[in-house]
Amino acid sequence: MRLDAPAGGEGALIARIALRAGHIDLPAPYQLLQGIGDDTAVLQVGDQTLLWTTDMLVEGVHFRLDWTDAAALGWKALAVNLSDLAAMGGEPVGVLLSLALPPEYTEGWLDAFVEGFAACAQSFGVALLGGDTNRAERMVIDVSALGAVQGAPVLRSGARAGDWLLVSGGLGGSRAGLEALQAGEASEVDLTPHFRPQPRLQVGAQARALGATAMMDISDGLAADLPKLLRASGVGAVVCAAHIPVHPVAAQWAHRRGLDPLAFAIAGGEDYELLIAAPPPVAQQLLERVPAETGVPLTRIGEVHAAQELWLEYPDGRRESFAIAGWDHFRA
Amino acid sequence: MRLDAPAGGEGALIARIALRAGHIDLPAPYQLLQGIGDDTAVLQVGDQTLLWTTDMLVEGVHFRLDWTDAAALGWKALAVNLSDLAAMGGEPVGVLLSLALPPEYTEGWLDAFVEGFAACAQSFGVALLGGDTNRAERMVIDVSALGAVQGAPVLRSGARAGDWLLVSGGLGGSRAGLEALQAGEASEVDLTPHFRPQPRLQVGAQARALGATAMMDISDGLAADLPKLLRASGVGAVVCAAHIPVHPVAAQWAHRRGLDPLAFAIAGGEDYELLIAAPPPVAQQLLERVPAETGVPLTRIGEVHAAQELWLEYPDGRRESFAIAGWDHFRA
Repeated sequence: MRLDAPAGGEGALIARIALRAGHIDLPAPYQLLQGIGDDTAVLQVGDQTLLWTTDMLVEGVHFRLDWTDAAALGWKALAVNLSDLAAMGGEPVGVLLSLALPPEYTEGWLDAFVEGFAACAQSFGVALLGGDTNRAERMVIDVSALGAVQGAPVLRSGARAGDWLLVSGGLGGSRAGLEALQAGEASEVDLTPHFRPQPRLQVGAQARALGATAMMDISDGLAADLPKLLRASGVGAVVCAAHIPVHPVAAQWAHRRGLDPLAFAIAGGEDYELLIAAPPPVAQQLLERVPAETGVPLTRIGEVHAAQELWLEYPDGRRESFAIAGWDHFRA
Repeated sequence: MRLDAPAGGEGALIARIALRAGHIDLPAPYQLLQGIGDDTAVLQVGDQTLLWTTDMLVEGVHFRLDWTDAAALGWKALAVNLSDLAAMGGEPVGVLLSLALPPEYTEGWLDAFVEGFAACAQSFGVALLGGDTNRAERMVIDVSALGAVQGAPVLRSGARAGDWLLVSGGLGGSRAGLEALQAGEASEVDLTPHFRPQPRLQVGAQARALGATAMMDISDGLAADLPKLLRASGVGAVVCAAHIPVHPVAAQWAHRRGLDPLAFAIAGGEDYELLIAAPPPVAQQLLERVPAETGVPLTRIGEVHAAQELWLEYPDGRRESFAIAGWDHFRA
């Protein structure tokens, strides 16, 4: 669930509606454990904990049809929602798909879209349970995903001073692919990270099972997302720039263009890797077991501090301080 | 959940994806009771039965911003989803809202939208649990609703020969409002049925509790929706045209334009009234109790037959027969 409302900052519009409606209890026996402000809503019913999220992809904003092959779009529309479930430590129960299609789409395009969506559904064992299709001038894809979690989900708000900060996979690869597309040099880089993000369901489930304190998926870039986790937890952090895992595609593209690879890793969005906070003994277990058992690299990038400020330590010894609300200036 | 796919008929695209992905079991202890093809998906978890649906409204297709006041749009976006829950005999648990907004929306417009959505949420006691907001060139609103139902939901597929067919409220009022807007004569009719549809949650719950055999909401017009229920149930029906409840607004507009009021009631979409099939003793109870207890009129319009054909009996004694798949020709 992305909540960057166009006016008033993240979640403002959704929160404003909820506020205006006033407090509304869920009907018994449903209980709301987490509403607006995390990767998913969390509902309790009996001994089951439900996760529920939605993400909308808009043509011209999130994708361009002349750049994006249809199969990739089908895959990504589903994957980004599963990533929200992963960020809570959950597993998918099912999804609904709403699709608005411009009249000029072709049967071949649609077949490829179907193929990509179905491939992702099959890869992660998630059933398509229904949906809604419509005509439109520009394509819009909205997926709603329902998930389940064993025990308590991992919220954004649980990070505590002393926790280590971990990141799965590599960062910046999707952004590098996007820039290559924008520059008309798509053939020069591997577009897989941009077009086929991998929801880290196994990593998230393991982090939850072993005792991670806070987690979210990195959809808007580390620079935008880490402050969200820190704000939700009421803490700060020191991040070691040299430890931020730069995706090989980002490194390659940055080298080609004479840019700073680290900037891609820090500012690049749409990687859908997990950002995890965990006490050192838990973090150590995760660093050993996650790569071995899931094949996904896991890297320690820093540590949580009580002071609500974010320090970025550079390899040359430079140390920069950021108010947590202001770290967004990294975004290109 | 509307499933009129742009290619291959209703639900075709969603069903095609599900087919391509192959059969995927839900994770234990979740069970799928009803997938694609009804007003909502139905999931069982423990002793709870969950309903889940989504509906997308697209600017230029489902609404025009120059005709639609923002508060009405906020109301309607939520109401049409609650109507799907009503059609199963369920009650709302919560909703998610995805919104794509063009850059030129104003704060005042947004405030009114918030107000309309919140008013509907409050009226029907449904909590907004999260969502997603985005920029776009044209406005798109997607609501996903989760509901609960006591016992078994009322599907489209349960109608049996001998059942009576009932319709809540009056039909054609929304279509009359739309035509008045199109004709630039909006001041001449009451636009309430068009802009503020009432999800018939109480009617649906009572129909389920008393033993209705099949139910759906009339979102695409009786002419389009009744055949869906009959097809799903493998039956046919005789409908008495004179008994179809014409909404007063439709009667008024038809009179003004010298048109047939019945055509509005039969072909008019977006009324969001309930179409109910029930054995005569149950139907008789509903006809007595629903108006008395909910204030919503309920009318017997016909009877279910075993032969898979639809007969429409006109007041002048004329009787027309339609193949069930073909009754759509009523739609203007």
